[in-house]
Amino acid sequence: MYKTGKDVRDDCRDSSWTAPTAGLGKGYVQANLAILPYDWAQDFLLFAQRNPKPCPILEVGEKGSPLTKIIADDADICRDLPRYRVYKNGELTEERTDISELWQDDFVYFLIGCSFTFEQALLAEDIDVRHITEGVNVPMYRTNLMCRDAGRFQNVPMVVSMRPFAPKDAIRAIEITRDYPSVHGSPVHLGDPSLIGIKDLASPDFGDPVTVGKDETPLFWACGVTPQSAAMVAKPPIMITHAPGHMFVGDLYDQHYKI
Amino acid sequence: MYKTGKDVRDDCRDSSWTAPTAGLGKGYVQANLAILPYDWAQDFLLFAQRNPKPCPILEVGEKGSPLTKIIADDADICRDLPRYRVYKNGELTEERTDISELWQDDFVYFLIGCSFTFEQALLAEDIDVRHITEGVNVPMYRTNLMCRDAGRFQNVPMVVSMRPFAPKDAIRAIEITRDYPSVHGSPVHLGDPSLIGIKDLASPDFGDPVTVGKDETPLFWACGVTPQSAAMVAKPPIMITHAPGHMFVGDLYDQHYKI
Repeated sequence: MYKTGKDVRDDCRDSSWTAPTAGLGKGYVQANLAILPYDWAQDFLLFAQRNPKPCPILEVGEKGSPLTKIIADDADICRDLPRYRVYKNGELTEERTDISELWQDDFVYFLIGCSFTFEQALLAEDIDVRHITEGVNVPMYRTNLMCRDAGRFQNVPMVVSMRPFAPKDAIRAIEITRDYPSVHGSPVHLGDPSLIGIKDLASPDFGDPVTVGKDETPLFWACGVTPQSAAMVAKPPIMITHAPGHMFVGDLYDQHYKI
Repeated sequence: MYKTGKDVRDDCRDSSWTAPTAGLGKGYVQANLAILPYDWAQDFLLFAQRNPKPCPILEVGEKGSPLTKIIADDADICRDLPRYRVYKNGELTEERTDISELWQDDFVYFLIGCSFTFEQALLAEDIDVRHITEGVNVPMYRTNLMCRDAGRFQNVPMVVSMRPFAPKDAIRAIEITRDYPSVHGSPVHLGDPSLIGIKDLASPDFGDPVTVGKDETPLFWACGVTPQSAAMVAKPPIMITHAPGHMFVGDLYDQHYKI
């Protein structure tokens, strides 16, 4: 459907695409978004540096500028994602498809690697990526895996995305994703979800549930929704993010992020 | 205890070491052995070429010569392993610590990569390798994973070795071992043993059982005992192998086999 990342962004910009982006803009990098006031940005940068599995940073904007330079040429962070979430004092207050009206002169944006980026490498080996097959958003869960503290970001639980595989494909998925450290790399957990504090795979905290076969092993990757978990705990006055699964699609190829 | 591979081989040569070699000759490559009459060697070479996960070949001898050139300098295949098995017409007929008397002018030896080689890389990251911790031989199992046919080697079931890990270590073990393809590389299976035809982890077909914790995931690697499984099925008049777990220890470092 979409040939390039720019095609996806163009449709996001006029809100003709407002749904999740897994499988879209085939072959182009996807990214999570976190926007914070400058006063909070330094703490967040340190938080990301200390937690590279959930928060591998791909690009950080200049204070006050919503335009990208690296991951895409002059994309507008305020309009080029399909859907946003606004957190005020740790509470999710609204979802929007355009945040231009909310932009502040002291805002700094962070684009953070997204595991959708390595999904093409899995599909290229005919490995079934369940949420794509089932046409839903990837299931995401808050866990009891705690991030390292940084500044005002204390006691932040990691969020993970889950994909189930036959054992052989699970091994191959670990091998493949290892080579994409800047889009979360290898998983942080496999098998029994209760060991990382997930009670029920059928009830994700973000996104949609997917079918998990009886003989399948769930793999859990650190997820760029973790900053939203951080917002809920640290309660900055305002933090704007993408809506989970509704990512920024860049101009760089996913292969660019392969080591 | 042993500083070099040659130290291990010297003690094997005079039979002062006749036990399994996991953890011995720290940092040196270990190898499985298969010896066949020349008439069968071509079929076996093809079998190995078609089945690189269980049978990654490290060195093949010249017809009639038991001396190594590559993996170790002039080691004697007939005396430098701790323990051998002799298969006649597919039946295990005896174990010996020296096979010099049995050597034939038409024999060709094959040294095949052994997963003991990558265990130092696991230990270096403080990943528990259970059979080393428990001081026993690694557990090995015949599976229902079938090798590709080659010549007279038809319908050969793959043998696997098993190591249990906490989920986080299981992921890391897959990442690490991926880089050692010539000593079996990444696992061929993880999780439920029954999916590859293993009825009971506590009753291995070769080696010893090890403790598997309730929250641990077993990983299964293709194993260089598979040629012994091949001998049982294809029934060559004679085939001599190492005794499972009782490996050839070479002069090359394990790092030499890292890609």
